[in-house]
Amino acid sequence: MEQEVYRRLNTTERVLGQYLTGRNNTNLAGLDVLALRTGILDAQLKPVIFSAYKQSSESGISNHVTIRFERTYINLGNHYHTENGIFIAPVTGVYMFHWTIVSGSSDFSTQLMVDGTPRASAYVPYPGGVDSSSAMAIIEVNKDDHVWIQIYGSSEYVYGGSTSIGSYYQSTFSGILLQTS
Amino acid sequence: MEQEVYRRLNTTERVLGQYLTGRNNTNLAGLDVLALRTGILDAQLKPVIFSAYKQSSESGISNHVTIRFERTYINLGNHYHTENGIFIAPVTGVYMFHWTIVSGSSDFSTQLMVDGTPRASAYVPYPGGVDSSSAMAIIEVNKDDHVWIQIYGSSEYVYGGSTSIGSYYQSTFSGILLQTS
Amino acid sequence: MEQEVYRRLNTTERVLGQYLTGRNNTNLAGLDVLALRTGILDAQLKPVIFSAYKQSSESGISNHVTIRFERTYINLGNHYHTENGIFIAPVTGVYMFHWTIVSGSSDFSTQLMVDGTPRASAYVPYPGGVDSSSAMAIIEVNKDDHVWIQIYGSSEYVYGGSTSIGSYYQSTFSGILLQTS
Repeated sequence: MEQEVYRRLNTTERVLGQYLTGRNNTNLAGLDVLALRTGILDAQLKPVIFSAYKQSSESGISNHVTIRFERTYINLGNHYHTENGIFIAPVTGVYMFHWTIVSGSSDFSTQLMVDGTPRASAYVPYPGGVDSSSAMAIIEVNKDDHVWIQIYGSSEYVYGGSTSIGSYYQSTFSGILLQTS
Repeated sequence: MEQEVYRRLNTTERVLGQYLTGRNNTNLAGLDVLALRTGILDAQLKPVIFSAYKQSSESGISNHVTIRFERTYINLGNHYHTENGIFIAPVTGVYMFHWTIVSGSSDFSTQLMVDGTPRASAYVPYPGGVDSSSAMAIIEVNKDDHVWIQIYGSSEYVYGGSTSIGSYYQSTFSGILLQTS
Repeated sequence: MEQEVYRRLNTTERVLGQYLTGRNNTNLAGLDVLALRTGILDAQLKPVIFSAYKQSSESGISNHVTIRFERTYINLGNHYHTENGIFIAPVTGVYMFHWTIVSGSSDFSTQLMVDGTPRASAYVPYPGGVDSSSAMAIIEVNKDDHVWIQIYGSSEYVYGGSTSIGSYYQSTFSGILLQTS
């Protein structure tokens, strides 16, 4: 028995150590896996992904008002809230945000807000007719922070559209937790 | 021997349990790892990533016709098909899609189609000259579903360009499997 | 003792094998984990993520000149260099790049450059006023390759803006290591 037990233990320890550290001769006893896995598996076991769109066009949106994307293509974890356009970060981490604004009355800019502070901004042009503008920013966000897209302008128009009627076009707001921290 | 075997077994079980569950005192015997790992490692072991671009400009594209991006920057797994512009999902999961359309004859919209049904739409402006418009949507797609970008308009123009000649500009279509489900 | 040791060894081997291969009855001894994990954990243990923005507008940018995004929203690993606008890939892998250019004097195109070679290009329109244009490309990049966004045009204008003053708008350049290869 002794020989087989040691052989199997050696193999198990080798495989596990290789997997966790990428090296041979890992000292498993000295491995703090709970620290190691933070930010690795968490994001995968509890994915945080949302992709929302504006279903109805909205006019006369005032300065500093949140753009509400009332529908979602997907909302894993339900951390984006369609009733007010706010995403609440469930964990501290690195998030990628992308938003597309279709507009058509005057130019303005949009701000990616985190708990009331602008963290990125984008320009929404008005070349004399309807235009579309997209932006992406990857930022760190703390657990429970509120994240939204806000207008910097006055009395602005943001297009929405249903998905079933293809002729319509949608303003969107998406977010992905890339990694916990 | 006994003492050493138990010590090493304890360590191995602790490390593996910590890694898989994020907790101490995991009961390995009760762990259904095959279920746990679904959606975790699969997407990483068999990545599904494509990024395609239009090489040649195309005019007179009719309503409901698929935009064909004839070349790829990358096509891991070869699930995007350059011959018809269609991506066939190899697994059920959450996919991020991004597309950029450069156009210049009239405005229209594009639809992200899944098996014939529009799942998202975007506006392609015409401010009197060439313009560029990008969109992103994250959606769930079933295994074997066909995904493509389609025109809602009539007789539309979509620009393409080779990569080697820098002055040209490219319409693109990219997709990433974020997670299996 | 014998029975307990074998029971625990069996369980540990089963769980580890299931996790690594997704199958029961894995032969751990035959598993080359160091090869298996390449491209899996590496990208997660050492994330490579940057998201940079232009803080100050710049005019008169010449043909083939790199656009310098002087600030970062985030720069995990510090592989993007604010002093010259260049990202140096720390590992060979698949990277997603996204860039948004706000401009307003004439139309031009931008090129995603890798070690001096254009790998993707995008159009930046000029509809008679300020406009914004975004693009994404996913490409394979070799370790130590230099990646940047370059202008194809002459005497071009690229907008920047501070984050604290929301009325300003930002040109951006972001990159994510999706997977090592």
